[in-house]
Amino acid sequence: MKIQVEITRRPGLRDPEGATAARALRDLGFTSVSDVHFGRSIVVEVDGDDRDQALTDVEDMCRKLLANPVLEDFTVEVLD
Amino acid sequence: MKIQVEITRRPGLRDPEGATAARALRDLGFTSVSDVHFGRSIVVEVDGDDRDQALTDVEDMCRKLLANPVLEDFTVEVLD
Repeated sequence: MKIQVEITRRPGLRDPEGATAARALRDLGFTSVSDVHFGRSIVVEVDGDDRDQALTDVEDMCRKLLANPVLEDFTVEVLD
Repeated sequence: MKIQVEITRRPGLRDPEGATAARALRDLGFTSVSDVHFGRSIVVEVDGDDRDQALTDVEDMCRKLLANPVLEDFTVEVLD
């Protein structure tokens, strides 16, 4: 089973990587760019058929290893 | 308008970051984890109302700056 994790920076926190990318894009001529936000997208493949257990496990993986709960929010969903 | 970009490693290429995360998760006790794939998720905010133009522009941004076309595939979609 594949579980999709989307990790985004928590609202209100500075995103220096995004600000740098937005500036670089405008410098390249993409003058309509007003902002850029970077996140991470992770697919975790787990054995087993229990979707609820898989989602609970992957949320636990996010809290313990994959995400930084101080700076980041995450969502999980079953892909297949 | 917000455009969502999903960037994934091209199929068949090694993903050392994913392999390391999978091993670390199994070491933490999540023994059902078989594989992990890391990608990037970017939201580009652009001014204007022309959705087709915005998508074309963001695809161009991916090729020129946001993605590495040698190693990565990308998809773009309008969020709002």
